[in-house]
Amino acid sequence: MIATWAMAYDGVKKASGELKNNISAADALEIAIKEVENHPFYKSVGYGGLPNEQGIVELDAAFMDGDNFNIGAVAGMQDVKNPISVARKLSEQQFNRFLVGDGATAYAQKNGFERVNMLTESAKSSWEKRIEEMKKSELSPYDGHDTVGVVCLDAKNSMAAGTSTSGLFMKMQGRVGDSPLSGSGFYVDSEIGGASATGLGEDLMKGCLSYEIVRLMGEGLTPQQAADKAVYEFHDKLTKRKGKAGAMSLICMNTKGEWGVATNVEFPFVVATETEEPKIYVARKGDGHSTIIEEASQEWLDNHEE
Amino acid sequence: MIATWAMAYDGVKKASGELKNNISAADALEIAIKEVENHPFYKSVGYGGLPNEQGIVELDAAFMDGDNFNIGAVAGMQDVKNPISVARKLSEQQFNRFLVGDGATAYAQKNGFERVNMLTESAKSSWEKRIEEMKKSELSPYDGHDTVGVVCLDAKNSMAAGTSTSGLFMKMQGRVGDSPLSGSGFYVDSEIGGASATGLGEDLMKGCLSYEIVRLMGEGLTPQQAADKAVYEFHDKLTKRKGKAGAMSLICMNTKGEWGVATNVEFPFVVATETEEPKIYVARKGDGHSTIIEEASQEWLDNHEE
Repeated sequence: MIATWAMAYDGVKKASGELKNNISAADALEIAIKEVENHPFYKSVGYGGLPNEQGIVELDAAFMDGDNFNIGAVAGMQDVKNPISVARKLSEQQFNRFLVGDGATAYAQKNGFERVNMLTESAKSSWEKRIEEMKKSELSPYDGHDTVGVVCLDAKNSMAAGTSTSGLFMKMQGRVGDSPLSGSGFYVDSEIGGASATGLGEDLMKGCLSYEIVRLMGEGLTPQQAADKAVYEFHDKLTKRKGKAGAMSLICMNTKGEWGVATNVEFPFVVATETEEPKIYVARKGDGHSTIIEEASQEWLDNHEE
Repeated sequence: MIATWAMAYDGVKKASGELKNNISAADALEIAIKEVENHPFYKSVGYGGLPNEQGIVELDAAFMDGDNFNIGAVAGMQDVKNPISVARKLSEQQFNRFLVGDGATAYAQKNGFERVNMLTESAKSSWEKRIEEMKKSELSPYDGHDTVGVVCLDAKNSMAAGTSTSGLFMKMQGRVGDSPLSGSGFYVDSEIGGASATGLGEDLMKGCLSYEIVRLMGEGLTPQQAADKAVYEFHDKLTKRKGKAGAMSLICMNTKGEWGVATNVEFPFVVATETEEPKIYVARKGDGHSTIIEEASQEWLDNHEE
């Protein structure tokens, strides 16, 4: 299992332990993402996520089954405790698999998913503070796009991919990034591998990078080669055409459990394999189209903990 | 310019005339799609579109600029006359380019886009009739997924792609298909070409077929070769993994104005080029991975008119 951001550590630890007991990739992925969604300290996913410009937490999530390509997704959903579980449930339907706005919220309600007011006191304070700051300055109100994305392989060689996020802090009502969009936020094929993205959704959806990385792995590239090629070539292309490219960080894993990461910002992530315990790494762009990946140092971990 | 379905004929005719006066691909695309949106007889796009299960018309649209990859999109928007124009306007923003549900509707309202109750008497009757039928039978309530998709090349070699749809008839509130999703419903790169899709969104988003066709054209395939390869290989893959594949029809055009189409159902479409007047063709799957394309016969056109 590989997952975006250090916040995924506890979830990966819990889920990878269960994977050793032969649970499915889909179950493990849901366990890992729910753990992140439930944690009040993570300001960009689930409970405790920072709200939109109106002070309302809006949630996006997606689930994809690599065996049969079933996809379920929600966007702009409100006050549902575990968006990833709603996305997974939707993936089992024949139609109406991607629901947005009030329709997504109503579906969750009708199907018995737990409702929670997802706005914590801490998130509310951040929002009020930012509203005050915005009155005083011309600074862009937008930051924070730390989607939790997970790719998982199980003992029976099934794979799953999924995402969950509260999106950009101070986003406009109903704004959706790449996270619930197939091919951009996630993609997985159990015969090849899977990928997931985090970063500026508005730019990520221009590149379909999760699809492209899986496609390249299918052509025989290692996960690291596929991630490097897809991410840095698209970063260069977008920079040439638009003058700049937003933050983009991609994770991937193939059917052998080999993994890769590419990013144009400093990007922590978590990996657990059959032989290695869950560990936090930090990636950054190297020279040319390469990525430097190191285990997170004790100093880095202490800072993160704080 | 190439566009999905015979309903695009009037729009393509109007827009291709303007293209000869050197308007931009983006302007021409907006003209063509607005013409379809405004027509009350077309039951799957804009005014006159068939409603969701609650009797409300919900609209999805997207716009992509092939020069700089700017994308704007809306989904689950209500009572806005021209969704394509809202999508195009959103594509010019740095953030918040994809808006869903009430957020999309509120954005259109705040930005002065014309409001119209998009439910026509005819669409309302169809909905009431279907509700009655559903009480009597076990038939699937879902049909109709005729998205208008357009790919356009202008005299300055800029390209644009866009889509507009009211989605599946009787869809659940907030259901979104592939139409507003980058890479699935549309994709365009002015240095290569563009593509757009129509069919069962739930299946189309599993293949990222618009992105894949553009990518294949970038590798040197003709539009027809790219469409055949992407669509029929994915149709076979999905059939193998799931036992079946929904309707999928893709159009594409490259930077020379050459075009291609592939489809697993009978699929009419419209093309206008520098040297040829707008014309309706009908495509169907041929032997192997090939497509049979013929000009629509007078009999076909008469039936369509009726």
